Amino acid sequence: MHNGVMNEVKLEEALMWAFYDGEFVQEKGKHVQLENRGLTFADGLFEVVRTIKGRILFFEDHFTRMIKSAAFFNMEIPFTSKETKEFASELIRRNAIEDGELYIQLTRGTDLHREHRFPSEKTPSTFFMLALPLRRIDAENWKNGVKLFTYPDLRHKLCEHKTINLLPNVLAKNFAYSNGGYEALMFRDFEGKKVATEGGSSNYFLVKNGVFFTPEIDNILPGITRGKVIDLIKKLDYQVVEKPVTVDEFLEAEEVFLVSTVSRVMPVRAIDQVCFSVCGDYTRQIMQSYEDLFFSSR
Amino acid sequence: MHNGVMNEVKLEEALMWAFYDGEFVQEKGKHVQLENRGLTFADGLFEVVRTIKGRILFFEDHFTRMIKSAAFFNMEIPFTSKETKEFASELIRRNAIEDGELYIQLTRGTDLHREHRFPSEKTPSTFFMLALPLRRIDAENWKNGVKLFTYPDLRHKLCEHKTINLLPNVLAKNFAYSNGGYEALMFRDFEGKKVATEGGSSNYFLVKNGVFFTPEIDNILPGITRGKVIDLIKKLDYQVVEKPVTVDEFLEAEEVFLVSTVSRVMPVRAIDQVCFSVCGDYTRQIMQSYEDLFFSSR
Repeated sequence: MHNGVMNEVKLEEALMWAFYDGEFVQEKGKHVQLENRGLTFADGLFEVVRTIKGRILFFEDHFTRMIKSAAFFNMEIPFTSKETKEFASELIRRNAIEDGELYIQLTRGTDLHREHRFPSEKTPSTFFMLALPLRRIDAENWKNGVKLFTYPDLRHKLCEHKTINLLPNVLAKNFAYSNGGYEALMFRDFEGKKVATEGGSSNYFLVKNGVFFTPEIDNILPGITRGKVIDLIKKLDYQVVEKPVTVDEFLEAEEVFLVSTVSRVMPVRAIDQVCFSVCGDYTRQIMQSYEDLFFSSR
Repeated sequence: MHNGVMNEVKLEEALMWAFYDGEFVQEKGKHVQLENRGLTFADGLFEVVRTIKGRILFFEDHFTRMIKSAAFFNMEIPFTSKETKEFASELIRRNAIEDGELYIQLTRGTDLHREHRFPSEKTPSTFFMLALPLRRIDAENWKNGVKLFTYPDLRHKLCEHKTINLLPNVLAKNFAYSNGGYEALMFRDFEGKKVATEGGSSNYFLVKNGVFFTPEIDNILPGITRGKVIDLIKKLDYQVVEKPVTVDEFLEAEEVFLVSTVSRVMPVRAIDQVCFSVCGDYTRQIMQSYEDLFFSSR
């Protein structure tokens, strides 16, 4: 089924470098123990950062978010922001990634006893980075818009942190993909209404009567791209309102778009059976402003 | 802080065998790739099974639960129940485990592209087992009862499956432990009431006026020990009611106990500041019946 995302690039996995626990490793070095708490308890955090021509976009924003969440969960990041960025640059260089994604993951390390509670003896956390070629997204998507499918938000109450507890996101995105869509529009039932939250890996905006609306941060991720886009909307002198937004409000909107590190600003052409004006004027302006920021940022 | 669980056993980890993807492995063989979906998406399931003197208790119950959840999540278990049990027995033998815990984990395998959706090409799942010595629990706990602390249930809506999305459980149990308690009594807010759900890795029962109550299966795990204990209560000709149970009902109970694979039937002596009759007559009968079942089962 065609949904505009292609992964025809075959990764020569064994030859790709990873940065893992302070070293650049290949092949057998790119493994964690079965008893890693990331694998047994999903006791970890991650970030996906966009890279282009060796530049790492909005690195400090991503890393600051990880630092905050690590403090919340009492995990330690073994490197400073500056060190991490240097290691990341070297990793990107070694893998000869032009247009890519930097993946960063932190876990509470290895715990041979598999006890839920934090280990009583201070154990070193696990920290690794992968530098991957950008997943291929059909350019038509930015032109013609993408299709969403609504799906219940089955997630936990820790969604303001970028944790690896992603199985509900996996189900949501898989549902959308298997129906030929690009993303899920997740919702929670609240007082008889379907309140829209976010996508499996995106945040959403709508435009109605010239005003932008986006779900407020209430157990949803404060996305880096979301933050940048809010700033851009304000800079363009439009009004942007962060509040609870229902699925019905999305269905009745004039324009809808999604934002994420990888999708950037992506127009939405349909939610379930409801179609929108594809890439209306407001969406087009935000897309352009974001592209300008994107290509000028370091 | 003393909470009755000790892990003084130092595991000679490198020398312990694991069963991993069809082979018995040690040391470097006991690793998964960084791109395993268990590690990056918590896209996996697990079971903890009690072993004693080479016997694996209620193995079919545990494995059947895993089979059901694997079907729900569209994952494949590479071995039959019979094969798995044989491999598990050999693993326990190799590690010379007398009294122990068999840990079984299944993930959707390795996904080099890190896309949320299920991989389009059928990739083999990851299946591994560990055989660990039983965690040491102070025998006084079964005599004097354990202390619980209430904690919000921050979990997702997939709690009827034993998934590895456990970070909310980790926080709950860690809260209880760090306050000197044994387990958390998790609750959800529902219509202004605190509805008790389960522990970080236990189910709960209370006794009031000679009737047993336990939270009904509504986004909580259908625990194997919970099922066995319900059968035992009925066999003893007592009434057991599965229904929504509030935290207040637990606080006003005459007796409270928790059940789990590792804790078996464990009396509760306090929830937050409220104390109970330690190991009342009803609890004692259930403990005894479960011990009889436990030592006679294969």
